[in-house]
Amino acid sequence: MPLDPEALGARAYAMIAELATISAEPDRLVRLFLSPEHRRAADLVATWMQAAGLAVSEDALGTLRGGFGSSRRRLLIGSHLDSVIDAGKYDGPLGVIAGILAAEPFARAKAKLPVGIDVLAFGDEEGSRFPATMASSSACAGVFDHDTLPLADAGGVTLAQALRVYGKSPRDIAAAAYRPQDAAAFVEVHIEQGPVLEQKGEPLGIVTGIVGQSRLRVTVSGEAGHAGTVPMHMRRDAYAGAAEMALALEKVVRAHRDDGMVGTIGQIAVAPGAVNIIPSRAVFTVDLRSLTDRQRRFAVERYQDEARRIATARGLGVEIENFHEIATAECAPGLQDLLAGCVGELGHDPVRLPSGAGHDAQVMAQLCPSAMLFVRCRGGISHNPAEFASVSDMGLAIAALIRFIERFQPN
Amino acid sequence: MPLDPEALGARAYAMIAELATISAEPDRLVRLFLSPEHRRAADLVATWMQAAGLAVSEDALGTLRGGFGSSRRRLLIGSHLDSVIDAGKYDGPLGVIAGILAAEPFARAKAKLPVGIDVLAFGDEEGSRFPATMASSSACAGVFDHDTLPLADAGGVTLAQALRVYGKSPRDIAAAAYRPQDAAAFVEVHIEQGPVLEQKGEPLGIVTGIVGQSRLRVTVSGEAGHAGTVPMHMRRDAYAGAAEMALALEKVVRAHRDDGMVGTIGQIAVAPGAVNIIPSRAVFTVDLRSLTDRQRRFAVERYQDEARRIATARGLGVEIENFHEIATAECAPGLQDLLAGCVGELGHDPVRLPSGAGHDAQVMAQLCPSAMLFVRCRGGISHNPAEFASVSDMGLAIAALIRFIERFQPN
Repeated sequence: MPLDPEALGARAYAMIAELATISAEPDRLVRLFLSPEHRRAADLVATWMQAAGLAVSEDALGTLRGGFGSSRRRLLIGSHLDSVIDAGKYDGPLGVIAGILAAEPFARAKAKLPVGIDVLAFGDEEGSRFPATMASSSACAGVFDHDTLPLADAGGVTLAQALRVYGKSPRDIAAAAYRPQDAAAFVEVHIEQGPVLEQKGEPLGIVTGIVGQSRLRVTVSGEAGHAGTVPMHMRRDAYAGAAEMALALEKVVRAHRDDGMVGTIGQIAVAPGAVNIIPSRAVFTVDLRSLTDRQRRFAVERYQDEARRIATARGLGVEIENFHEIATAECAPGLQDLLAGCVGELGHDPVRLPSGAGHDAQVMAQLCPSAMLFVRCRGGISHNPAEFASVSDMGLAIAALIRFIERFQPN
Repeated sequence: MPLDPEALGARAYAMIAELATISAEPDRLVRLFLSPEHRRAADLVATWMQAAGLAVSEDALGTLRGGFGSSRRRLLIGSHLDSVIDAGKYDGPLGVIAGILAAEPFARAKAKLPVGIDVLAFGDEEGSRFPATMASSSACAGVFDHDTLPLADAGGVTLAQALRVYGKSPRDIAAAAYRPQDAAAFVEVHIEQGPVLEQKGEPLGIVTGIVGQSRLRVTVSGEAGHAGTVPMHMRRDAYAGAAEMALALEKVVRAHRDDGMVGTIGQIAVAPGAVNIIPSRAVFTVDLRSLTDRQRRFAVERYQDEARRIATARGLGVEIENFHEIATAECAPGLQDLLAGCVGELGHDPVRLPSGAGHDAQVMAQLCPSAMLFVRCRGGISHNPAEFASVSDMGLAIAALIRFIERFQPN
């Protein structure tokens, strides 16, 4: 199969740019799961799949599938169409588009492959809308958690309601799952979202594993009071406690530096929220990730102890809900080696690196051997409009994926 | 003048309860400056003033005046009709209603007094709507700050626009001011909003002075990033910095414990505000109060230094805006003594105590000698639906105010 990485990269960029025009807001990219923008994006991607010679279908979670070949055994390739709020345009779409452009020459040539190919466009990787993530890849992997159906978005709409508005029925979720014997492998192309490849001067990286995640929602309860009349020693200030718990997170995480652990408080809200009232309530989220599950679980326990100690010392109540837990996923060594060989053949050093971000591949690893190909991005910046990957680097990734499809042999 | 404190208290309670039904929300008390609820409350109070024999007028900031007597020299009595969000019903209305019920017997009897009486119902003491407070008493005192006119509420409506919607013109603000030679004194009855009178077992207190306030808006700027891929040591997390600055406030304030200093962070917001994104921006308010201006200003400077030190150590930017500054106001010793005599005559010990809360009297002290009479409230609770003062205590306050009017002699 002849390869022109630069041409592949240019086509990918044009498609990425077109997809980026589909947003809920005129001035920034916001594309949430099961929103009207998700619908429009999926419809556009469906036309690309059809033009590439793929047979399009859609499952109960809105995951779009572009299939080629009649074999029951499938090589799954894909990523996601949803975005964070004020997103960059590469995170997600690159992996879907790379799948389409890599499958296209085989579909066009009606190539005889030992497996069929399904290009998958998931809709819920970021968790920007509902307080849960990866619902769509979970359904494909057969590990969908039905307890997430009553979870509501910021507007009070539950996942179950949103699915119905999207024309889906929760009753069909079971049918979205691949049978393990049919799923030969899953491969995802994604921008690195970190600075390693740029620092090493290499366009592509082979992911060794994906960090596990724990997400907590911490609710601190104190007593509201007048900001002028309650002496400091008589206060039960929920926000002062939450602030001390924020610094405690840094301390716990830094004690696990060797494990590449990171911890983030991305949301905090206080009530009643007036300049002259002592907060009676503070609610914040904790996102904790590390390369080993054991260390992460240990850190979560230590953090909960710290938060409770701080609350007790300040006469506050604290409730901690662990609302999201993803295990560390190792990428399949055989697939890593095959991807590395394809990258090497294109004249580049296949850097091996872990992924600090969560990905659909993490969930798909529960179904079948999974792998990820990382593409260098500028400054390691992601989840930000400044996110950027070059046409050349994207083209190399698609070329490597084409080579991968040529050589892939199911076990 | 015969006095029946219990009957006065019962009338006051009925009026307070009626006023409390006027709210922007069905389930909690919210009455904001220049809102439709402000209009309805002022209309109700105007009918009470008229029924008490007072001549009603309204100034450019919506302050309602109920006047009695033709003397140019006026004894001013009043408090405010606006509320915090989810307020109690006594904070503010008690002082307006006490003024009406105390002026009524003099107006009914067409009493010959050495001064006229104006009962004032201000509309902006809490600062719950616009990022500035006491606009209405400032206009009466002739110290209105025209720089506050472009300040906007949470919905983007500026103070100037809200005044126009309320049927007022900023051009008339100058005419709202009393001439200093016409203002003989200002007296305000108010619930204590603190625990001192309850602890001492006394119904009434004489305020010695009102604490000064500084309010800051602190904006911390960092860099957004993916919660999984940016190592801890490479982060510029705006919220982590803001949390450290929250604990620094406690430290600075506790170092001034002798001065009765209190410091509160009542509002905090982070952006972009997603569970998996490192915050690029955190904005919070600081409310700092103390019994002496010198100590408070010193503490504000120390806090700004601390915030800048924390920002520098974390590679963050910080901007600190001092958006509200009220000087400590001493209550006039002659008025304190006169009030104390009236309380003593009713058989109670006139406890002298400072006010940790800001009040319109603080602003009016810039116009004329001012004083405050505090009424015991249960548990020191205020800015809270549980706020409570007894009928007996309120009646005693109104009785003391009637005695005060009888005896008041202008300088």
